Amino acid sequence: MQLSCDEAKALICRALVTQGASQNVAEKVALALIMADADGQPGHGLSRVPSYIEQMLCGKVDGKAWPFVRNNNDSTIEVDANRGFAYPALDLAVEELINAVRQKGGIVMSGIVGSHHCGVAGHPVEKLARNNYLGLMFANTPKAMHAFGGKRAIFGTNPIAFACPRRRNDPILLDLSLSVVARGKVVQAAGQGRSIPRDWGIDASGQPTDDPAEVLKGSLNAIGGSKGMALALMVEILTGAFIKNQFGFQASSFFDQKGSPPRVGQLLLCINPLEFNPDFFEHNEALVDELLAEGTARLPGARRFEHRNLTFETGLKYPENLIRELEGYCNF
Amino acid sequence: MQLSCDEAKALICRALVTQGASQNVAEKVALALIMADADGQPGHGLSRVPSYIEQMLCGKVDGKAWPFVRNNNDSTIEVDANRGFAYPALDLAVEELINAVRQKGGIVMSGIVGSHHCGVAGHPVEKLARNNYLGLMFANTPKAMHAFGGKRAIFGTNPIAFACPRRRNDPILLDLSLSVVARGKVVQAAGQGRSIPRDWGIDASGQPTDDPAEVLKGSLNAIGGSKGMALALMVEILTGAFIKNQFGFQASSFFDQKGSPPRVGQLLLCINPLEFNPDFFEHNEALVDELLAEGTARLPGARRFEHRNLTFETGLKYPENLIRELEGYCNF
Repeated sequence: MQLSCDEAKALICRALVTQGASQNVAEKVALALIMADADGQPGHGLSRVPSYIEQMLCGKVDGKAWPFVRNNNDSTIEVDANRGFAYPALDLAVEELINAVRQKGGIVMSGIVGSHHCGVAGHPVEKLARNNYLGLMFANTPKAMHAFGGKRAIFGTNPIAFACPRRRNDPILLDLSLSVVARGKVVQAAGQGRSIPRDWGIDASGQPTDDPAEVLKGSLNAIGGSKGMALALMVEILTGAFIKNQFGFQASSFFDQKGSPPRVGQLLLCINPLEFNPDFFEHNEALVDELLAEGTARLPGARRFEHRNLTFETGLKYPENLIRELEGYCNF
Repeated sequence: MQLSCDEAKALICRALVTQGASQNVAEKVALALIMADADGQPGHGLSRVPSYIEQMLCGKVDGKAWPFVRNNNDSTIEVDANRGFAYPALDLAVEELINAVRQKGGIVMSGIVGSHHCGVAGHPVEKLARNNYLGLMFANTPKAMHAFGGKRAIFGTNPIAFACPRRRNDPILLDLSLSVVARGKVVQAAGQGRSIPRDWGIDASGQPTDDPAEVLKGSLNAIGGSKGMALALMVEILTGAFIKNQFGFQASSFFDQKGSPPRVGQLLLCINPLEFNPDFFEHNEALVDELLAEGTARLPGARRFEHRNLTFETGLKYPENLIRELEGYCNF
């Protein structure tokens, strides 16, 4: 079923508001989800609405909560998501970071406390880059990956996102979770009864397996084995202990009604790219030229922006039952 | 051949000074190399001395150069390695970062310009952590890995290191290069005529191969495929364009006399861990407890510190011909 971006956004807003969200929160959430779909990241798109609504209804996320700046201390900005959705808090953090770095230059950071699913991790850093700053974000998520030498899921897939502005082009944008594959791909394979590559995850006894159902009872593998696990631990420290949030192993799921609010965190760094090098933009193009000279190489983010631009023209395609489900939420 | 740490350090110093290094530079270099060996990282240890001396003799690195602070602007400290060895510059950056974060809290960064081989990337961040700060370092290195969709080596293996202080224990310390394996392992396999796993690298035509000699003509694989490549690109931007250094594809080798000085860079971030959370240390122990509860899981850095402590007692073991080679450098 084909919807224009505006139609999809309006439908999400209506569903969320009918189920108890405030209009300003619903608009932020709807925009973030639509952008995810436009970017070719449907796992963070409109398909999340039913589980978001479930979590609103049981109190795991407050659909009326608006974030606020708890503390703004020179280079450190603490944003409280107020147990609401992450998107309004992320937008506030981005705004505050841009104001701070504009005034003082250098590097500034914002930690988001009491947060929820951050969606497409590339979006907040992309906004920083479109304002001509370097952006780096770490986010923790509910447990999905085991630690080194372990077999129980402890770390989230803990995305890292980075964006680098360019003068006359879209930013360079990278956005990666630290697992070999997203959990969604394992769920999909299990649903279709397909086997999966043996390097995607382990079963509950810690053994590699090609059975997706066993991986779902076990744990996902990190990229590069112990290397990805170490990076995931770093993200847990920076978003959990550092910002005073829950760790991935403590957080409840982003998908269901079970447990208390996940209270995970996001840490954003914003850097003035001209801080050391007034010729940053020109200098960086030498790297871009070298990458593109090979012909086959592509800049991270390029495919996403192509997908987005195309979708803005053609609209979004959704399964009809999903749209019917959202329409159902629009009735009291 | 068994040497005490002091003996090994003195031998390195003598060799470097005889070949033209100043005493203060030689002492910094020798200590860094000995610590690498003590930590079980011989690829960054005493075995580097012959190639360091070659590079001094041809002018690729200045054995008398002492680093200086080019600029210290609130949250940004620019350290010029002055085309000398990286170790004195890294120590200066660590010192300046600690002073800066002590005064102003928050997050401060130091970029090192005109630098050389950073050795064990974990060492500078470990020093920050032993002063009770969070440390994060990115370093670029001469080209060794291809970009997404490409087959020529463009990025360095670009290590990322992070250290987190603990109240009554060694820091949590992670230190990883972004290639599946270090290039040294491929060189070693080639020397021994052994085949290697097909996921280590590609040949010059871009095809996976189990022949290490072909990988040495081709390129190393990044961890997690496009994910590790994206992280490597981030490190190139942060250390090359941002600090005004050469990119990995422009830098000359750390091993031979060919080319001009590599002029790579290192970016260090130093963060007050109590910035958002006065209970950071206690909070973080909940994560440590969860990791260690599994029995089999180990904290990143633990093996390194065990190795170091043992080596301080037992001394270091080197091939006799390597020691003879260094002794040779001690004669004019």
